[in-house]
Amino acid sequence: MRNIKIVLEYDGTNYAGWQRQKNALSIQQVVEEALYKLTKERITVIGAGRTDSGVHARGQVANFFTASRIPAERFSFALNSVLPPDIRVLESQEVSHEFHARYSAKAKQYRYSICMRPHAPAIARNYYYHVPDILDVEAMNAAAKYIIGTHDFKAFQSAGSGVKNTVRTVYEAYWVWEPPCYLHFHIKGNGFLYNMVRILVGTFIEIGRHRMLESDMKRILESGDRDKAGPTVPAHGLCLEKVYY
Amino acid sequence: MRNIKIVLEYDGTNYAGWQRQKNALSIQQVVEEALYKLTKERITVIGAGRTDSGVHARGQVANFFTASRIPAERFSFALNSVLPPDIRVLESQEVSHEFHARYSAKAKQYRYSICMRPHAPAIARNYYYHVPDILDVEAMNAAAKYIIGTHDFKAFQSAGSGVKNTVRTVYEAYWVWEPPCYLHFHIKGNGFLYNMVRILVGTFIEIGRHRMLESDMKRILESGDRDKAGPTVPAHGLCLEKVYY
Repeated sequence: MRNIKIVLEYDGTNYAGWQRQKNALSIQQVVEEALYKLTKERITVIGAGRTDSGVHARGQVANFFTASRIPAERFSFALNSVLPPDIRVLESQEVSHEFHARYSAKAKQYRYSICMRPHAPAIARNYYYHVPDILDVEAMNAAAKYIIGTHDFKAFQSAGSGVKNTVRTVYEAYWVWEPPCYLHFHIKGNGFLYNMVRILVGTFIEIGRHRMLESDMKRILESGDRDKAGPTVPAHGLCLEKVYY
Repeated sequence: MRNIKIVLEYDGTNYAGWQRQKNALSIQQVVEEALYKLTKERITVIGAGRTDSGVHARGQVANFFTASRIPAERFSFALNSVLPPDIRVLESQEVSHEFHARYSAKAKQYRYSICMRPHAPAIARNYYYHVPDILDVEAMNAAAKYIIGTHDFKAFQSAGSGVKNTVRTVYEAYWVWEPPCYLHFHIKGNGFLYNMVRILVGTFIEIGRHRMLESDMKRILESGDRDKAGPTVPAHGLCLEKVYY
C-alpha cells in the first residue's frame, strides 16, 4: 500500500463541507467516490481541514492509502477526469506511511474576503461577503495585532464544539485592501477553533464600523466570553489557502 | 420622461448574452422585466455593448426612458431588489435626453482572463479560460504593441458579421501576470468587431506558445485574413470592464 498526498482546490458552494455526512453531499464523499471509480477500492480520504458548508479551498491537503498501480504523480490527472468541475486535484505525490494530512499539519492559512460597496457583487458573488458600509481598515489592522501570538481563543469559538484546549498560536493576521472595493483577511496559525476565523472577522467588522474599539479585541480575547465578540460572518467568504507541514 | 443611465455588473454564465432574443434568456430581457415590475411600463433598455453568451460585465452601461417617479439615484437599489443575484445595478443617475448608451460611447475597455497551470480552476472557473501550457508573456506583450493605434482589424472578425468598416482604434493593449498563475489581457479601444477580443487573445496564446512569432501579429493584421489569425477563445474569460463617454 502506498500513501498518496493530494492538494485540492474546490468551490464549496454546492457542498455540505469537507466531512462525510448522512443526507448531504460532502467533498470527502465525492473524492472517495472518484477514487472508487479509478481503483475499485473503498478508500477513506483524510483531509487536513474540515471546512464547513460553503467554505472554499485553494490548498486543502488530503491523504489516502491505495494498492492501485496508478503512478503517484498521475493521480491528479486521473482524479480530475472523474471529479466534477468544482473540485480539482492540483498535485499528487507519494509520501511516507507516517504522513497524516490532519495530524502532521504544522500550520494552516485561511483568507476571508469582503466586497465593500453599496451593492452586492454579481461576479464572484460566492467568494465575497458583502458589507455595504465603509470599514476602517487601519483600525482593523491595529486590532489584528492583538491576536498574533499564543492566546486562549475561547471567546472566538462557537458554542457546543466540545474542544477543551482552546489555546492556539496565530503567526500572521492582517487585512489587505484590493482596489476598488475588496478586503482580504489573511490568517496563519497552528490550529483554529470551530468558527474561529469567522467570529474574528465578525469582530473586526464591528471595529471597522467603529461600533467597537481596536482595544476591544484584546478585552474580548481576555474575557473568554463568546457573547462579547462580534457575529459569525457567512461561510462563503472563507477559503482554506494553504496547509504547512 | 426622464433618461436614466445605469452601470451594471453581471455574471454572464447563465445568460444568452446582453441582447434580447427568442427562446433564450438575455440580460436585457431580465432588466426590462425588472423595470416592468417597478414601473409597470414596457421599457426598452439600450446597452453600450452587446456582450455574447457567457461574457461578463463589471461596467456595462445602459439607459432607458421612464415616466416613473422613482428618484434616479434610487433606481439601483429598487432594481436590485427585483433582479436575480447574478445581475446588479451599481449606479443610476439621470442624464440628458441626448445620451445613448451605445452611440454616445467614446471607448470601451475589456479584460480577458486566463488560468495558466496544469489543472483547470475550481474556484472562479466561470471567469478564467484554462490554458495548461506555460505562455511567454513577454512575447505576448511585444506582439500587443502591433495592435495599438488605428488599423483595419478585418483579420480579427468572425465571419458573417456584415460590418463594412473594419477600421478601429486601440488605445491600450497589454498583458498582466497575476501570481501564482493568472494572466489578464487589458484592451481599450473606440470600438470592437464581432469576436475581435477573443480572436486577438487566441492569436496571443499561439504567440505565447511560440507556435507563432511576435511579428506574426503585424503580418496577420496587414493580411486582413481571418484564417491566418488564431482561434476564437471561449466567451467565459471575457469581461466588459468599463465604457467611456
